[in-house]
Amino acid sequence: MITARAHTNIALLKYWGKKDSELILPYNDSISLTLDQFYTDTSVEFSQHLKKDEISVDEKPLTGSGLTRAKRVLDLVRGQAQIHTAARVYSTNHVPTSAGLASSASAFAALAAASAKAAGLTLDKRALSILARHGSGSASRSIFGGFVHWHAGTDNQSSYAESIQSKVDWDINLITVLINTNEKKVSSTNGMQSVVKTSPFFPAWVKAAQADVAPMTEAILNKNLAKLGTLAEENAMRMHATTFGADPSFTYFQPQTLAILNTVRNLREQGVKCYSTVDAGPNVKVICAKADNELLLTQLAKIVGHDALSICNPGPGVTYL
Amino acid sequence: MITARAHTNIALLKYWGKKDSELILPYNDSISLTLDQFYTDTSVEFSQHLKKDEISVDEKPLTGSGLTRAKRVLDLVRGQAQIHTAARVYSTNHVPTSAGLASSASAFAALAAASAKAAGLTLDKRALSILARHGSGSASRSIFGGFVHWHAGTDNQSSYAESIQSKVDWDINLITVLINTNEKKVSSTNGMQSVVKTSPFFPAWVKAAQADVAPMTEAILNKNLAKLGTLAEENAMRMHATTFGADPSFTYFQPQTLAILNTVRNLREQGVKCYSTVDAGPNVKVICAKADNELLLTQLAKIVGHDALSICNPGPGVTYL
Repeated sequence: MITARAHTNIALLKYWGKKDSELILPYNDSISLTLDQFYTDTSVEFSQHLKKDEISVDEKPLTGSGLTRAKRVLDLVRGQAQIHTAARVYSTNHVPTSAGLASSASAFAALAAASAKAAGLTLDKRALSILARHGSGSASRSIFGGFVHWHAGTDNQSSYAESIQSKVDWDINLITVLINTNEKKVSSTNGMQSVVKTSPFFPAWVKAAQADVAPMTEAILNKNLAKLGTLAEENAMRMHATTFGADPSFTYFQPQTLAILNTVRNLREQGVKCYSTVDAGPNVKVICAKADNELLLTQLAKIVGHDALSICNPGPGVTYL
Repeated sequence: MITARAHTNIALLKYWGKKDSELILPYNDSISLTLDQFYTDTSVEFSQHLKKDEISVDEKPLTGSGLTRAKRVLDLVRGQAQIHTAARVYSTNHVPTSAGLASSASAFAALAAASAKAAGLTLDKRALSILARHGSGSASRSIFGGFVHWHAGTDNQSSYAESIQSKVDWDINLITVLINTNEKKVSSTNGMQSVVKTSPFFPAWVKAAQADVAPMTEAILNKNLAKLGTLAEENAMRMHATTFGADPSFTYFQPQTLAILNTVRNLREQGVKCYSTVDAGPNVKVICAKADNELLLTQLAKIVGHDALSICNPGPGVTYL
């Protein structure tokens, strides 16, 4: 039995729109930061004693699209290893209840790493990244620690992630802000599909995002928090602009989302280096310097309460336990 | 002394971006509904006894950009009438305190009509519309009652409004929803300037808005509330998408704005024909059938209170008192 641990990541330059939904090829490159707080441990063994794949997540049998995607990764591994045996998979998510983060990035990165090794394959990180991508696009980035660049590519082999800066030895934190909501959720897959099909803004989004890859990479290498944060907030707002422009129009923002965005903007005008990013949901992630954590926690708690806030540090890439 | 009364209007297809800021030529056509509730009465006389223009609004001397724009309209009138005398202008705005509507559309439409007649000119409505446009773009539409179409045009003479349906004999209302906010306001002029210059989404906005002119006109002529409302809400959301995409990103939305948008969307999913539009500010205007007024007032009041709500009917074009 092989066990791998992978951490989740937050895109600072977003993955938003699939050019090829079979291969999960995105329209544009993306850049992320892997976080230390939230991870998935996944154990895999292939066994001739099994009639079919047995996959459990947090001690419950996996079902639905999660199961389909997990089987896709296992099938690719079996194909590469030229084995025909079924797999037993145990997966456990470790997430602070207040983070409001999705687990698919860490889950499929851990599954890719554990299943490849369990099948006897020796894959380098780029190959693992390609494999993980077939489970969930963002999982391709969770193979690596720190700042990561996912190249959109044009086919299976050219769409992979690689490290920009695996050891982040500078003063950056990310505060997750959980927004209370009773609104029904539009999945990121459905949201991006609707935007690609109907939003007149989608082509400009792709172009603007792609143009930000080089300056954001440079900001990371220069450890320039202000530049990185500014680019990240702009990029996130553009992504959400595409949803307002879709037909029918929709938004992941909730009233509290806007309140947090306003607070961050106001604090920034007062000189605090803090920047927002928002994924396909109402929660906000605030990029900031470690030194400003306390100030930010105090201000953000006024809107959502302390229990809704978590501080994350840069985290490591996938490891075997 | 000549007195004219003009009513404000709400754009259902928005004016957002100036192609020529001297002539106030917009990038795209717009379509509006003139409202009955809010109007401006403006009295003008030209007199050789005056040394310079004396202009008061609500019994206070007009200053700043409002003064500059009013003088521009008066100068155009003097040029056309070939007179050189100064003008005395009294203007009074009549607005329910809870409406949260801007007064420039009604103010400059009333000024154009009163000053032209006071100078002895006999201008048709198209000419008045062109004249009013020089004070404020949206004022070109307030010359007419009911549903109005402002042609973007390519020069001074081709950029004018005209009536689509001056007598609205069908079941449409507009509920204005005043949002409480302490946030500082980005003026519509500054907002659209920033978007034109920096938003990668602006060209697609113009194209999508222009493409909606014909279907929206058809929906009005067919008295099709659902079609008209759907197009109006889509158009408004696209306009606001351009601000999220600007550099720096900004928004006119406040948390309560999103709460109202959500409520309207939810009621619509329950079968109520109601649609939102939002101008360059946090307030929402809800397009609905008269029959649904009570239901909507009850639901919207849960978020903003009853005092923040006003019901408007279609209103008339400019008249002389």
